[in-house]
Amino acid sequence: MDRVSWRTQVLKNHLTQAPSPETPSLSPTPCLNYSPPELAESTHFDTSEMRKLLDGHNLQERDWLYGLMIQSKLFNPRRLGGRVFVSPDYNQSMEQQREMTMKRIDYLLETGVFEGWLTGKTVEEELRKFALLEVAGMFDHSLAIKLGVQFFLWGGAIQFFGTERHHVKWLRDTENYVVKGCFAMTELGHGSNVRGIETVTTYDQRAREFIINTPWESAQKYWIGGAANHATHTVAFSQLNINGINQGVHAFIVQIRDADGNICPNIRIADCGHKIGLNGIDNGRIWFDNVRIPRENLLNSVADVSPDGEYLSAIKDRDQRFAAFLAPLTAGRVNIAVSAIYSAKIGLAIAIRYALSRRAFSIAPNQPEVLLLDYPSHQRRLLPLLAKTYAMSFSANHLKMIYMKRTPELNKTIHILSSAFKASFTWHNMRTLQECREACGGQGLKTENRVGHLKSEKDVQSTFEGDNNVLMQQISKTLFAEYLAAQKRKKPFNGLGLEHMNGPCSVIPQQLPSTVLRSGHFQVDAFHVRERDLLNCFAEEILQRQARGEMKEHALLSSYQLAEDLGQAFSERCVLENFLEVEENSPAGSLKDMLALLRSMYALTCMEEDASFLRYGYLSTENAAAVRKEVAILCSELRPHALALVSSFGIPDAFLSPIAFNWVDANSWSSVQH
Amino acid sequence: MDRVSWRTQVLKNHLTQAPSPETPSLSPTPCLNYSPPELAESTHFDTSEMRKLLDGHNLQERDWLYGLMIQSKLFNPRRLGGRVFVSPDYNQSMEQQREMTMKRIDYLLETGVFEGWLTGKTVEEELRKFALLEVAGMFDHSLAIKLGVQFFLWGGAIQFFGTERHHVKWLRDTENYVVKGCFAMTELGHGSNVRGIETVTTYDQRAREFIINTPWESAQKYWIGGAANHATHTVAFSQLNINGINQGVHAFIVQIRDADGNICPNIRIADCGHKIGLNGIDNGRIWFDNVRIPRENLLNSVADVSPDGEYLSAIKDRDQRFAAFLAPLTAGRVNIAVSAIYSAKIGLAIAIRYALSRRAFSIAPNQPEVLLLDYPSHQRRLLPLLAKTYAMSFSANHLKMIYMKRTPELNKTIHILSSAFKASFTWHNMRTLQECREACGGQGLKTENRVGHLKSEKDVQSTFEGDNNVLMQQISKTLFAEYLAAQKRKKPFNGLGLEHMNGPCSVIPQQLPSTVLRSGHFQVDAFHVRERDLLNCFAEEILQRQARGEMKEHALLSSYQLAEDLGQAFSERCVLENFLEVEENSPAGSLKDMLALLRSMYALTCMEEDASFLRYGYLSTENAAAVRKEVAILCSELRPHALALVSSFGIPDAFLSPIAFNWVDANSWSSVQH
Repeated sequence: MDRVSWRTQVLKNHLTQAPSPETPSLSPTPCLNYSPPELAESTHFDTSEMRKLLDGHNLQERDWLYGLMIQSKLFNPRRLGGRVFVSPDYNQSMEQQREMTMKRIDYLLETGVFEGWLTGKTVEEELRKFALLEVAGMFDHSLAIKLGVQFFLWGGAIQFFGTERHHVKWLRDTENYVVKGCFAMTELGHGSNVRGIETVTTYDQRAREFIINTPWESAQKYWIGGAANHATHTVAFSQLNINGINQGVHAFIVQIRDADGNICPNIRIADCGHKIGLNGIDNGRIWFDNVRIPRENLLNSVADVSPDGEYLSAIKDRDQRFAAFLAPLTAGRVNIAVSAIYSAKIGLAIAIRYALSRRAFSIAPNQPEVLLLDYPSHQRRLLPLLAKTYAMSFSANHLKMIYMKRTPELNKTIHILSSAFKASFTWHNMRTLQECREACGGQGLKTENRVGHLKSEKDVQSTFEGDNNVLMQQISKTLFAEYLAAQKRKKPFNGLGLEHMNGPCSVIPQQLPSTVLRSGHFQVDAFHVRERDLLNCFAEEILQRQARGEMKEHALLSSYQLAEDLGQAFSERCVLENFLEVEENSPAGSLKDMLALLRSMYALTCMEEDASFLRYGYLSTENAAAVRKEVAILCSELRPHALALVSSFGIPDAFLSPIAFNWVDANSWSSVQH
Repeated sequence: MDRVSWRTQVLKNHLTQAPSPETPSLSPTPCLNYSPPELAESTHFDTSEMRKLLDGHNLQERDWLYGLMIQSKLFNPRRLGGRVFVSPDYNQSMEQQREMTMKRIDYLLETGVFEGWLTGKTVEEELRKFALLEVAGMFDHSLAIKLGVQFFLWGGAIQFFGTERHHVKWLRDTENYVVKGCFAMTELGHGSNVRGIETVTTYDQRAREFIINTPWESAQKYWIGGAANHATHTVAFSQLNINGINQGVHAFIVQIRDADGNICPNIRIADCGHKIGLNGIDNGRIWFDNVRIPRENLLNSVADVSPDGEYLSAIKDRDQRFAAFLAPLTAGRVNIAVSAIYSAKIGLAIAIRYALSRRAFSIAPNQPEVLLLDYPSHQRRLLPLLAKTYAMSFSANHLKMIYMKRTPELNKTIHILSSAFKASFTWHNMRTLQECREACGGQGLKTENRVGHLKSEKDVQSTFEGDNNVLMQQISKTLFAEYLAAQKRKKPFNGLGLEHMNGPCSVIPQQLPSTVLRSGHFQVDAFHVRERDLLNCFAEEILQRQARGEMKEHALLSSYQLAEDLGQAFSERCVLENFLEVEENSPAGSLKDMLALLRSMYALTCMEEDASFLRYGYLSTENAAAVRKEVAILCSELRPHALALVSSFGIPDAFLSPIAFNWVDANSWSSVQH
């Protein structure tokens, strides 16, 4: 990094503040004065255009919902340092937080937020639903999850697993909260392994009823959001036993509470208790004691049971039936991937704004203290994460748009992309929040400052709707299958972006000057080299193990190191390609230049951080040194744009936190409630 | 990893459980039955001897305090699955948690736990204090921090900064909680940079009083544990202005509440509010409005002011005086380093016990589901962290013992070791808890299971008593000073374990067979090669920058990448050497063999994980592949000892959590409080 320009930058930033004298205690003005970063920082691209690229769609509706929440007392507005901030009172007990979540939903219902969320038929209505859910999640994860359970899990099960008779009966009532649904899939003994659940359903032909039973303790439904307090109905997942033959997992509608909130007969419910986050969600456990439900309550889009007890399904293979059954749940992973990136945005907007107003240590005597973000090490902590968040934000949009256009042919792509992005984005979010919290020092620990608190709220994302590690292994397994298929059919790779495997392998140049390092072409080449080699190595290792007599499943499990490296390589390559697409579609100008800078930071940070580039020799130590040096230079180039880059997130001030603004005022004696 | 032995192991472990039939729903026994890991696992070394090595001292007193806590209703015992577990009710409000912390302290006071904590004079008494504080922290971090504030911060300030007159007046009353103290150092505007605090104290010669003042908002005392509710007195840190000359930071005793808990005149106090953890601590903010205190309240071990207002100090240099003043605070960093490792032990004991009883997925049809810890990837997630925890535990003891023998000559060593270990152990703990929480799946999110909750409680450790990143930079700065001193004096390196710099540089062999990889000699060589080269590179970079006209401080900040790599290299080398010392002092036998296995796992994991080995070419890609392969083999070798290794931690069952034992029973309907 160029020291002269850095020092100039530091000094320039200090001009807005008088230097403090040698003995600060005798100074007539405080050594630390709050100065709004806007005074010192300038903007070199159109932040509202950037926001359009980031949010992607329904900007007006997003702002409308932000406004609705800020206006209502239910969203716990507090005035600090002359500003209003909204966020739940997390000092409330679990029980109070749950009731507040429900009250907020009632308010959003009245204001028409959920119109068309289940009865809408168009892509526009579906996009609106996604946008508004994303905004609700910016206030509180519990609020978003509670809505996700009602509309995506319970409502989605009706939509996708049910047929006309279920749609007519349940969708509008669900949209209006006449029924409150929950989603009873996970059991105490089986989470990620849905196929292994132990709830049993049999059919009573005479009564034309199904009988659902929890045969033993490990089969109790567990983590069922909504079950502990509010839900009236659930979709229960169960093995279906017809005439002594287990037809696998099926879904049934079961009423669990009456309209007055009393638990129905033969249903037992217990609380999951206090959690490290999401205490606004009433997770519960359910036992079914031979509960009888009408035959029509089987969600029968994939398979049905006739009145006289015959099992009917167009898909004969049990594995295929199971896969078809779960495919629609992909929406959950799409939502999680998107939500993780919005959460990283909150963390970065707060930590970067704070780093642009908080000073610590003078570098030399008689000099003012230095802004945190003027420390090269602080830049290195936050700015690569900022670039990654941009990159992943574009990929989250890409995933959402593919999901909107979903067809059976796209199922595999959607499944693997949503798995890859769900895993890598949620890990990225947790890492970003942790770094942001530490970068904010003690202030990052105050609940009101959000950045530390969000960690506990979002932690669940790395294991729910598929454990991240399991998902990563599935990706590599899928890529291995593609590899085998291409080999067997002697046909080129087609799909999942693996076409690069068909051409000759790129070569990483021995010398990597800045122009090469920053070229999209080189970056994609490097990512292709890594993915190609890792896929080849992984496949070879599996095949060798199999040749030695190992079972394929064993071989896959034993090759976990390569599988993890490959999963990451796949995910990062997809993200880079999506980024380049966004960049190519932007007209020439300052915004496109900014995108190029961010994209280079993304690509080079991945190359610096993923040890596999060095471990397998894709980069020489000289190459790696060049990459590392370039990342530091990119930090200094992104530094002047940091404020504009987080402003482009379009998050209203009220959804950030006191340390993102005048934290001296917000902490003043006059702000204390006496 | 040898597949055959692994499969044998898997199958052996399954013998205690009947295989489930193809269609689990029709099975007469549940697919998942809890089976205590003790039934399947065996122990090949003396776990009580191992515990002695780990805890190091005062084992009986530790068990006595564990017992005291389990027996008392105040420690919130709950019966689940036939066992009692203790831990605070974190669903209580911040206000309730604070009161409970105080009540628990009252109980421990009555039972004599704190006897000699401040009035004791011997090393034995000091060791007892450390041991009991560590055990209190196993129950709850707030409890330990509240005690730490009373005895180490307030009490320590009286001991180390005060003189006879203060000792006589305050120590016994503090030990008996007749006074409740707090420690007002940090301000809103200055945390890590203590030298920059803005509180001002002047001397009124006529009244023979000091006048302490908070001149503006950024000078308010912040994060002062105990200030919000309970503390009667504080030690206030302030610039001391004598006759217009600022003599730098000094410490004064100030009463802030009367015996009835009313806030004293000219003191204003506000709450720091809800935090992401440590809500059992009443962190507060203090403003001093020209508060007058007797001249004798200056803690005058380093400097004094005579009755007629003359400033007196044996140390003329302001910087040296400041350093002498803060040196005794090292105890805080020693405590934090030790406490972080105990917390990692809780996480690992829970996650490993759970992984030895929780099954997920069958590898092949008709086979029982596999124990989590029989998955190679799960071993790779947990077992290297287990080995690191052992390694750091020994180093924590080493640090504590040096601290006990502290002399002025040892100050530098204690300062740099406590900084290095505080930073690396707290980061290790957070990483371990995160991995353990994810390894426990959803169960890791339940507050009652501890492992997820501990993250929020312990997060503070990475930034308090010195931000970890700042500490790491200080280490490299100190090493650079050693380098310069050795060069200037043309004398060999002496101290901080840098003597290896004096000899010829070791050479890493081209081939690394298992025997070499596992030899302590090779491991130390590799760590020396890294540290030596990084220190040389770092020093050369700084000197080159200075030669180009850069200020030294700028040069140090710009070389942050090398500084961070060097800090880590230093810390890891110290830990490895301490481990070897423990191993060498152990008699030949199974315990020593186990230590060797753990030490190899520690060393090779460091080599695999720290990219600097590859980045700077200390290891070739072939070397790195050999290391990686060996880590996987070590995982399979440590796997059979996992249970014994966490049992050796000596943590009573009641301080673990339901998922560490029969989690099916603990979650059964009969365990629900109806």
